[in-house]
Amino acid sequence: MSERIAFIGLGIMGSAMAGHLLAADHRLTVYTRTKAKADDLIRGGAVWAQSPSEAASNADFIFICVPDSPDVEAVVLGTTGIAQAARPGQIVVDHSTISPTITRRIAEHLGERQVRFLDAPVSGGDSGARNATLSIMVGGDAGAFQSALPLLQCMGKTNTHCGASGTGQLTKLVNQILVSITNLAACEALTFARENGLDLQKTLAAVGNGAAGSWQLANLGPKMIAGDFAPGFMIKLQEKDLRLARHAARERGLVLRATELVASLFSTALDEGRGHEGTQALIAIVEEIAKGKVEGGE
Amino acid sequence: MSERIAFIGLGIMGSAMAGHLLAADHRLTVYTRTKAKADDLIRGGAVWAQSPSEAASNADFIFICVPDSPDVEAVVLGTTGIAQAARPGQIVVDHSTISPTITRRIAEHLGERQVRFLDAPVSGGDSGARNATLSIMVGGDAGAFQSALPLLQCMGKTNTHCGASGTGQLTKLVNQILVSITNLAACEALTFARENGLDLQKTLAAVGNGAAGSWQLANLGPKMIAGDFAPGFMIKLQEKDLRLARHAARERGLVLRATELVASLFSTALDEGRGHEGTQALIAIVEEIAKGKVEGGE
Repeated sequence: MSERIAFIGLGIMGSAMAGHLLAADHRLTVYTRTKAKADDLIRGGAVWAQSPSEAASNADFIFICVPDSPDVEAVVLGTTGIAQAARPGQIVVDHSTISPTITRRIAEHLGERQVRFLDAPVSGGDSGARNATLSIMVGGDAGAFQSALPLLQCMGKTNTHCGASGTGQLTKLVNQILVSITNLAACEALTFARENGLDLQKTLAAVGNGAAGSWQLANLGPKMIAGDFAPGFMIKLQEKDLRLARHAARERGLVLRATELVASLFSTALDEGRGHEGTQALIAIVEEIAKGKVEGGE
Repeated sequence: MSERIAFIGLGIMGSAMAGHLLAADHRLTVYTRTKAKADDLIRGGAVWAQSPSEAASNADFIFICVPDSPDVEAVVLGTTGIAQAARPGQIVVDHSTISPTITRRIAEHLGERQVRFLDAPVSGGDSGARNATLSIMVGGDAGAFQSALPLLQCMGKTNTHCGASGTGQLTKLVNQILVSITNLAACEALTFARENGLDLQKTLAAVGNGAAGSWQLANLGPKMIAGDFAPGFMIKLQEKDLRLARHAARERGLVLRATELVASLFSTALDEGRGHEGTQALIAIVEEIAKGKVEGGE
């Protein structure tokens, strides 16, 4: 069945994801800040809108994929936001990674107009977006999730309904806590190995397939060894996500010491101008701290 | 070819490993502090010796598997130690996880008597020992490694010659840094999830197979959720290994902040009487700290 869909935010992730919806023959209206980013989709049949509210006005499903909490607030609640065009029965699916608290606030606001809001952050990176193999973690109304599921399946391989509004974002933060501390494990282990004169390739081969193994070690370890800091997932995005995790933990009165540590290390990496490098560049910060070259990390 | 082998130290790991050598029709002499632990092997054809030196006196290969650096020093250099019976050409294989520095010292001492000493710590736990699927990380003379390899293959699936004396121990410490910090990632992520009211099974399913995935999360995560703290790998051994890692890092002038953190958390776990629980019980400490119930971790 062909659905009427709006897609707002056509960065690397959003444009690939919107492309899958278009390829599945849905009727797509798009809006993004830089119109040039919509060119390919428009050539493929998508309709351009002048604002989020215009994009939303003829849609039953409205997808959002923008960088941070204030961007989602602007897209939904701003003067040309989709709330201006809200009609009962619409479903808004937010693929951005943002604050769980702001998510719940937006969901309540739209709920007053009988619009259901699903938080649906993704993991899997640009390759996951291109290949439609994302993991999508969804919070919000179970019926809305079921309605949106055929569309999510155009983009994601693992689509999990996590619970009430905000639980998709919280699950994404769980993911980011795991990803970043496991990355840190690889950084410290390889720094220890290098400074002790071990052959790093042999070391990886000896330890990588047992209880020490992880996706991070297997995928980022070789890049760390080679000094290849080209992104995959960028430092600046990991830093943002860890700020969200840290903030969400503190809102619950939780002290998570490794999360605090790794958040501070990514913050140091950002300060040192590494925001556009991949997260494997964390090893450069770990090495500097290990050798006492920077204070960092507290 | 049937070799003349001594095996010293028949704990859970050592007795299983010695059993594989016996099953491969080697001539086995054994010694361990508590003779009862040798009963099964003796019934299987092993010969009992009254001391390490007696065990070593008729052996070409001498295997050691004891808890800590002082134990290895006593077994090798003590008044009834194997150095007393040293003959040129013997090869000593130490499967204990001990200090790389003490390892090199022992290797030098035996080298003066033309006895070659291989550090050969293992990972894979008691199930790896039982199933002969250990990873064995070996430092020392390359020729000695080649000579010992057919015997190592009776016990280990991945047998890596890492380099000179001490590099086996250093590689094991790399492994333990990875294992323990990755474990800590799982502890903090699941504590965050639980305190935010997430369904922990759903959370694991949503995040476990992507970039957040690890052996630790897959194997210990479900036990953490269930509160099943039966060992696998004991807290007290992880704490010891992290003391070795911390010490080895400091000997190189390295500050490894996550390693320091996780070492201090395992030390707290030991102080709280959790030494005989599995390493997944670290989550209990992480939860206490998260909720401000103990200071710990510095």
